[in-house]
Amino acid sequence: MTQEPFPTWADTAADLVNVAAGRAPAEMILTGGIWVNVHTREALPDHDIAITAGRIAFVGPSADHCKGPDTRIIKASGRYMIPGLLDGHMHIESGMLTPAEFARAVIPHGTTTMFTDPHEIANVLGLAGVRMMHDEALMQPINIFTQMPSCAPSAPGMETTGFEITADDVAEAMDWPGIIGLGEMMNFPGVSNADPQMLAEIAATQRAGKTVGGHYASPDLGPAFAAYVAGGPADDHEGTCEADAVARMRQGMRSMIRLGSAWYDVESQITAITERGLDSRNMILCTDDCHSATLVNDGHMNRAVRHAIDCGCDPLVALQMATINTATHFGLERELGSLTPGRRADVILTSDLKTLPIETVIARGQIVAQDGACLADCPHYDWPESARATVNMARDLAAEDFDIPAPDGANAVTANVIGVVENQAPTKALQFELPVTEGRVQPSGDVAQIALVERHRATGGVVNALVSGFGYEGCMAMASTVAHDSHHMIVVGTDPAQMALAANHLRALGGGITIFRDGAPLATIDLPIAGLMSDRPAAEVAAKTDALMAAMRACGCRLNNAYMQHSLLALVVIPELRISDLGLVDVRSFEFIDVISA
Amino acid sequence: MTQEPFPTWADTAADLVNVAAGRAPAEMILTGGIWVNVHTREALPDHDIAITAGRIAFVGPSADHCKGPDTRIIKASGRYMIPGLLDGHMHIESGMLTPAEFARAVIPHGTTTMFTDPHEIANVLGLAGVRMMHDEALMQPINIFTQMPSCAPSAPGMETTGFEITADDVAEAMDWPGIIGLGEMMNFPGVSNADPQMLAEIAATQRAGKTVGGHYASPDLGPAFAAYVAGGPADDHEGTCEADAVARMRQGMRSMIRLGSAWYDVESQITAITERGLDSRNMILCTDDCHSATLVNDGHMNRAVRHAIDCGCDPLVALQMATINTATHFGLERELGSLTPGRRADVILTSDLKTLPIETVIARGQIVAQDGACLADCPHYDWPESARATVNMARDLAAEDFDIPAPDGANAVTANVIGVVENQAPTKALQFELPVTEGRVQPSGDVAQIALVERHRATGGVVNALVSGFGYEGCMAMASTVAHDSHHMIVVGTDPAQMALAANHLRALGGGITIFRDGAPLATIDLPIAGLMSDRPAAEVAAKTDALMAAMRACGCRLNNAYMQHSLLALVVIPELRISDLGLVDVRSFEFIDVISA
Repeated sequence: MTQEPFPTWADTAADLVNVAAGRAPAEMILTGGIWVNVHTREALPDHDIAITAGRIAFVGPSADHCKGPDTRIIKASGRYMIPGLLDGHMHIESGMLTPAEFARAVIPHGTTTMFTDPHEIANVLGLAGVRMMHDEALMQPINIFTQMPSCAPSAPGMETTGFEITADDVAEAMDWPGIIGLGEMMNFPGVSNADPQMLAEIAATQRAGKTVGGHYASPDLGPAFAAYVAGGPADDHEGTCEADAVARMRQGMRSMIRLGSAWYDVESQITAITERGLDSRNMILCTDDCHSATLVNDGHMNRAVRHAIDCGCDPLVALQMATINTATHFGLERELGSLTPGRRADVILTSDLKTLPIETVIARGQIVAQDGACLADCPHYDWPESARATVNMARDLAAEDFDIPAPDGANAVTANVIGVVENQAPTKALQFELPVTEGRVQPSGDVAQIALVERHRATGGVVNALVSGFGYEGCMAMASTVAHDSHHMIVVGTDPAQMALAANHLRALGGGITIFRDGAPLATIDLPIAGLMSDRPAAEVAAKTDALMAAMRACGCRLNNAYMQHSLLALVVIPELRISDLGLVDVRSFEFIDVISA
Repeated sequence: MTQEPFPTWADTAADLVNVAAGRAPAEMILTGGIWVNVHTREALPDHDIAITAGRIAFVGPSADHCKGPDTRIIKASGRYMIPGLLDGHMHIESGMLTPAEFARAVIPHGTTTMFTDPHEIANVLGLAGVRMMHDEALMQPINIFTQMPSCAPSAPGMETTGFEITADDVAEAMDWPGIIGLGEMMNFPGVSNADPQMLAEIAATQRAGKTVGGHYASPDLGPAFAAYVAGGPADDHEGTCEADAVARMRQGMRSMIRLGSAWYDVESQITAITERGLDSRNMILCTDDCHSATLVNDGHMNRAVRHAIDCGCDPLVALQMATINTATHFGLERELGSLTPGRRADVILTSDLKTLPIETVIARGQIVAQDGACLADCPHYDWPESARATVNMARDLAAEDFDIPAPDGANAVTANVIGVVENQAPTKALQFELPVTEGRVQPSGDVAQIALVERHRATGGVVNALVSGFGYEGCMAMASTVAHDSHHMIVVGTDPAQMALAANHLRALGGGITIFRDGAPLATIDLPIAGLMSDRPAAEVAAKTDALMAAMRACGCRLNNAYMQHSLLALVVIPELRISDLGLVDVRSFEFIDVISA
């Protein structure tokens, strides 16, 4: 499974020069469009673009001198010609899609470049998994650059990942052809405390001349933030308010503002430009995490640009934030991000700069989408068995594996319970008085059981605890191998027998998400690749996701985004209470606590 | 002669993080200044900057937490703290100074970074000469990056240089520590015509991930320009009008606008920003060529910034054009060009953002200038004999070597004469009727003799021709080993005997510029290094230059900048008539012509 690298500007310069000079015919010419120039921030009517060897050879009022008998003419006819859109930071796994199917889903939305951090697969399969994502990314007709994951495990000592990422791994990956930098440095306390491993990963990236991604998820803009900045991360997408964006840009970082499926961080930060009037060159749009349904129904980077415009941003400035600003950040400004000679011919034709209908998408000189339909081939990597057999449990589980034993003789206990909060990633550390039957703590009312089933090393480990807030009723359980960040299996249910059925079903499938009621599956998304990704198209995954959500509602769940809440319950870097394969974690103090409080 | 490379951000990250966090004391703190933030384009009062290990560790309203008992406190006290200035493109040899003495001259003006193309020494000493300049550059307390010269000879087939630069030389140099890219690609017809050697040099630079400097010295913005752009040069400083600047920026190049000693290209181009309102990020200030007297009397990049402001540019935008825009262009935006954590601590303190008095200059955390005085050591490279013995003539010349023989029996001839034009680099192709005495053409009126004396290979070659426009009177001659671009020796005089004396004087000196009258020298600048540079301080060279100019005036010359006109008479890439070691060149047709027309 090899792919030819896309020829460089240097490889094709003679062709480009000859076309521009009129000595050789272009392969394609776009005629009579409005040239959206993201360098000068202008929209210039009546321009042609001549393309050859997948790159732009010429832009000017007339490309007639570049025309030959076989030149393909595309009439832009007064429409805007804008650069293909760049997503400055994102995780493909969030769509539960492979790179190929993610590409196929976003190409009709005009995304032609993504900077993607395969953090999730790194936790399951380590460097080998990153390489697989990287390799499939390079097979696509659009530009998918890989940011080498920096933090697996996210919380060392608090969880066990399938594999760990070391500073040596980072240094090794920097030589791969598709690696553009280091993925978000989530261990921000580590950087602020000069943790040698974190600084070594950053150093390896800087020495390779590549870009260090940041992730400073704290409102504290005091010395801890200053120390993080001094450590080297070059961008950050965790800001949530104007002050966050301003602080990052003033300190020489790029402020990435995100509109994901569940992230709405553009409106609150873009005022740094629209109201305070700061130089906009250091602000970048990104999505971070998009679900398949968003890609199918709403869009991708076009949705982010539109939203920025709706928030009052000048359309040309918003486009700069999704094109040249991003390209410059990653050292690619002479390779993509603008419609100028030498750059990859990634072009969108659109009739309106504000509503941004994506009519035609050209990537590397080929028409890859027309009126919402993807016309390009998005080849699949031949995922090996090692990537498809990642639910590594020693045996099928029984109801007894999910028992929560009570102290001898107790009729009731006070238990520490993870409290899910509507529309928020953080949880609450709650306490409930729960009944005991036959020596086992019983879920009751809105308190359900939760279990973390070890699935990387067949240890047979099952950590049991309690959770409230989903509103589940009846005899049910839901299980998922998408369980950030170490991606064991999270099972939530009202009944141990259903929990065992759901877990065993995922074991048999090789990963996914399923919901069982009264002994039968209500809905299932199979995610055979690393237990994280389908290899089916986005529309199919989105439909299955819809069915899953409906099944959750049928079981009494009234939360928005209940699936996401489920998958984040093991994310031991966000307060207050989480579950890991090592126990129940109080993230406020980074200590393990018992389920039974008294 | 080795120098320790300046430690990288990665090398010093732990120190920077610890200072920023308040766990370790800073070496220096600037207190209470106005932070000129070139990222956001703001001036923020009441800020401190903490510095350690030569880099900025922290910037914020108070750096008290970074203070220790040995921390040096510099009171900025309400003054502006601006980044040290960057010169985006320049030739050190134009000052007739070594890199060390050039640095010493510009440090008090706040220049802390230069991108320098040692094109002149490349013509004399080839790659070895470039390496010497590069090595002395790296010894300095400021940042001097080398652009590998691209075009020696400038006009292949029209002149013989001391050495030639090949594509292999370029590829080799790309691995040197101080090489930042390719120097101005002057052979613009070559690029437009897809000349393989020119494209190979560009390709070697692009493949090394470095920046290709441009030089498109033509008003033609048609397909020839488009073809040049498609060839890969990333910037251009040869624009002279607004349309030039706009065209370059739209096509994805950076427009460098220059204020040199004799270049005034800012006022005519900065209107692209100040009047047309284009995005300013792609405009960069540079000097290209500065004489010692300019450095001594007027300034350097501070002069360029001041001038841009005088032309109506917002001071913060003008400063961006001399700091972050330049750093970004060369891929150094996380290394220098702004006052933010991790960057080299290159800081200027100034009381006024418009008149820009340079009060204190800090480079890499050390105070290098105070109130116009350079306080830093600027070490000299130990220039080898090969660099000091470059006037390689076979023998002393006699008056007869400068004879211009007339056709047998002629009493007068019509001669082709190089016509110098006041204040312009181009010359005119003129014809004069001149008397013949004893078989030799006689200079007469304002027509003087000119000779190109070969000095690289001791061929004994002397090419004789005629020049008008200097206004020389009496019995005199002026000779110079600064003779762009191949730097043989140009001798201009009214009398063959004086011409021989002047030439032989330079041979004895090992290079320089001298003017003789009536058998004795009137003024001399000795330029022992490559015949191009003194190794004395700028003030001394400037004083000698003043004396030379006075001597030229004493001999009747009324031209402004007559010395520069003299040194450009062999520049066989600028029309109309020039002299080279191979003959008299009609640059309009790139053909050799005879001195005697009829």
